[in-house]
Amino acid sequence: MKPSIPRGTRDFGPAEMHKRQYIFDIVKRNFQLFGFSPIETPAMENLDTLTGKYGDEGDKLIFKILDSGEYIEEIRDKNLNLLKKALARSFYKRSNNNSNSPFKFRNSFSTVESRFSSKELTRNISEKALRYDLTVPFARYVVMNQHSLTFPFKRYQIQPVWRADRPQKGRYREFYQCDADIIGSNSLINELELIALMDKTFSDLKIPVLIKLNNRKLLTGIAQYINATDKAMDIAIAIDKMDKIGQIGVENELFSKGFSHEQINKLLEVILIKSDGVRQINNPAKKIENEEVLNFLKTVSDYRSNHILQKGIEELEFLFKNIKTQGLKHVKIELDISLARGLNYYTGTIFEAKANEGTFTPSILGGGRYDDLTGIFGLKNMSGVGISFGIDRIYDVMTELRLFPEKINSISSTQVLFATFGQKEQLHCLKLAKRFREKGINVEIYSNESKIGKQFEYANKKQIPFVCTVGSDEMSLKKYPLKNLETSTQSENPLTISQIIREIKKYHSAK
Amino acid sequence: MKPSIPRGTRDFGPAEMHKRQYIFDIVKRNFQLFGFSPIETPAMENLDTLTGKYGDEGDKLIFKILDSGEYIEEIRDKNLNLLKKALARSFYKRSNNNSNSPFKFRNSFSTVESRFSSKELTRNISEKALRYDLTVPFARYVVMNQHSLTFPFKRYQIQPVWRADRPQKGRYREFYQCDADIIGSNSLINELELIALMDKTFSDLKIPVLIKLNNRKLLTGIAQYINATDKAMDIAIAIDKMDKIGQIGVENELFSKGFSHEQINKLLEVILIKSDGVRQINNPAKKIENEEVLNFLKTVSDYRSNHILQKGIEELEFLFKNIKTQGLKHVKIELDISLARGLNYYTGTIFEAKANEGTFTPSILGGGRYDDLTGIFGLKNMSGVGISFGIDRIYDVMTELRLFPEKINSISSTQVLFATFGQKEQLHCLKLAKRFREKGINVEIYSNESKIGKQFEYANKKQIPFVCTVGSDEMSLKKYPLKNLETSTQSENPLTISQIIREIKKYHSAK
Repeated sequence: MKPSIPRGTRDFGPAEMHKRQYIFDIVKRNFQLFGFSPIETPAMENLDTLTGKYGDEGDKLIFKILDSGEYIEEIRDKNLNLLKKALARSFYKRSNNNSNSPFKFRNSFSTVESRFSSKELTRNISEKALRYDLTVPFARYVVMNQHSLTFPFKRYQIQPVWRADRPQKGRYREFYQCDADIIGSNSLINELELIALMDKTFSDLKIPVLIKLNNRKLLTGIAQYINATDKAMDIAIAIDKMDKIGQIGVENELFSKGFSHEQINKLLEVILIKSDGVRQINNPAKKIENEEVLNFLKTVSDYRSNHILQKGIEELEFLFKNIKTQGLKHVKIELDISLARGLNYYTGTIFEAKANEGTFTPSILGGGRYDDLTGIFGLKNMSGVGISFGIDRIYDVMTELRLFPEKINSISSTQVLFATFGQKEQLHCLKLAKRFREKGINVEIYSNESKIGKQFEYANKKQIPFVCTVGSDEMSLKKYPLKNLETSTQSENPLTISQIIREIKKYHSAK
Repeated sequence: MKPSIPRGTRDFGPAEMHKRQYIFDIVKRNFQLFGFSPIETPAMENLDTLTGKYGDEGDKLIFKILDSGEYIEEIRDKNLNLLKKALARSFYKRSNNNSNSPFKFRNSFSTVESRFSSKELTRNISEKALRYDLTVPFARYVVMNQHSLTFPFKRYQIQPVWRADRPQKGRYREFYQCDADIIGSNSLINELELIALMDKTFSDLKIPVLIKLNNRKLLTGIAQYINATDKAMDIAIAIDKMDKIGQIGVENELFSKGFSHEQINKLLEVILIKSDGVRQINNPAKKIENEEVLNFLKTVSDYRSNHILQKGIEELEFLFKNIKTQGLKHVKIELDISLARGLNYYTGTIFEAKANEGTFTPSILGGGRYDDLTGIFGLKNMSGVGISFGIDRIYDVMTELRLFPEKINSISSTQVLFATFGQKEQLHCLKLAKRFREKGINVEIYSNESKIGKQFEYANKKQIPFVCTVGSDEMSLKKYPLKNLETSTQSENPLTISQIIREIKKYHSAK
């Protein structure tokens, strides 16, 4: 059997792990600096918890888990029972007709099939699913623990999520999200804190970033302006695909959803505005101020009565004003009123960040405010806002832009390898290794009885900086030659263990 | 909808997370000290990769994932097609019989059911499963990356695994394993290194531990001695349950597997021996030396021709001799020839560790040597040995024995909270917070506009040690009162930001 792994999943070897760990450490450190506390939720959630939260398209991408236990027999029996019932009904019908040719019999299957709903079937074989994001499990957690938590509750969560998306560059079926959310406060101070958090984290990672900002209230207000108040979500889903399917694609999708040409034109005129009332979506030549765009929105015909539009503009104006006052150290931030983000649950601010350089610029962060995500689980009036770093894509971008520091480009953290001439020496090294490890030095003893050359080759391949060779002379002298593989220099005289420890510590503190 | 999580899974709040992180950090630090490099594998593996590696009982506990994409319709269609074919066949049969009463028709379903094999059905709806342990995915990884890895390959891996076990105390459906393995070396030096690693790690965690040691070759040799060479695995599976089902239970299971009473008696006489040829399985009064047990085994009638038994004894003697020479700092180690460990793939040394104190003493570590785990994936001659720390149970044991240090019993790592009188002050605090964070201090700004009392209560509940109160006077003076909540003392005069930073740093370095 030739082994493989499922499509869209990946293994991470030591070299990748060290780089990933570098990103996780920076993100985690910043979450703590901003006062977020860690939680973790199970990989599996009840199917009910997840379905209906991500839109129809999201629901399709949820990985379901087969019921456990004697599941195979159970599934078969449950399925057969459902079919039996359906067929028994169709059988009676058929026998009344007195027509029982095989052809007719097969025909009756279509009746069965249509009755035998797919929903019913899935419910019978699957009650659990892999989490699709960290936000819905977080809302579920908050509701279940509402009496013991202190609000506003600030949590961070770093765990993998799973989506049955079509795999492609930058899109995986298993990937990590690193989320920070504040729930139980509708103050826009939280948005400002999150922007500061993004600024500091991307600055630490050295990734040049453009944050796009919008507000769902703006979209809702615009839906009202084009007389499609109940279709704000359709608008959000369609314009969210602008990058993928282009303006024509968006127009077609809206038309198929029942929007009139007039509504579509009115919508695009507003959504694509960058300044001067001219469509300039792909005109980077002219720098347009965020304020100009908001001012333009104030000119739409129903502005005075469009309270949700007013509210959205007001919130964005507050944010941009204070971002200017606070100052950003590293990232750029920009209003993009065509930014929608597909997720059902956003109601206010929405964020998206992309790298500002390089050829590969997928979204590396997303987030936003949700006013009633906990409501579906029975807890009303819990506004929350959060962001999610996509570290797998951050990794891809940092690789392209060569942003990983030199020192972590190593496949091993071992500091010294003991090379020996046989088992007697290996046993001796076990004792030496203990002393090194007590001093916090990472040590390996080469455990096969191979030629010295092969042992040095092992150290070279693993980028272990020092090799200490141990033979019977060294064992009796208790002094050992130490070779630095980076400089290819060997200690002039054999060294005592204390001297070797000093050498290694000196080398590493100099790094 | 009242939210819940699947049976056997858990949420971890901030307090639990900090304690779990403490364990992970110690385990990970020790893995590095011993020269292991990190890898990660996907949560999902192809079903083929996992099935058949854990015995029949293990296979049943694997969580299967439904095929993705348009899976619901696909499953329905695939199932219906299978049924259609089977029913078409049974229909023809029926119509030849000229009997088409509903009763007869329903009867034909049993024929269909038996033809409609459960294996066929599962294959049609599930191709992926959640990993059951980290060892099989590791073997798969090694085979897939054999040309780029440097052998002996030492890897550690810290990830959750999933088992559809019946939930009970200390047994979860999702739990973390922390594995260290060396593959590509059959030297017993590796076993000695792993014992040293356990000794150091459990010493750092301060858990009193008894490690039980055995060797599968001993079991195979004993199987040969009782003339059941081909049933060594049955013996291993049965005696592995000694703790759960007792001696009588084991006897019954062996009998049902076709062992004769004579074989069972001969087996138990040897397995339960602790010394003097007397069954003493539950007699802790008399201390029996490991060497005595091995010497007794040398007296079995076919010893001179039982090479596998000889080899097992020789390996164990080597380990015990060198453990004695090396010395153990913290753990106790003991031969237990009734230790089997259920997993199919072990062929040599086997380890198991339990806490040596307290009322709750589940297995907190297991491991062993496997000579041909990669063989099934097409790579022969790759002996490996590894151990797996069960950190969820380590957590439970440490909780019972109160082994977590005082300082990590906190639900927040925030060092100072800014309490304010309103939005203007909050905006001012955003700027102050930036300076604190640049100095590495974890800061929160209370983001709701609540009474000061409520803000102090928040800090108290979250065990944040300092609160800095900011009103309009403080803003213009740029001096702020700082209160230490632990001592309930307030700075005599308002302090500058630099003074506050100094205070907080002083407090934390004193901790």
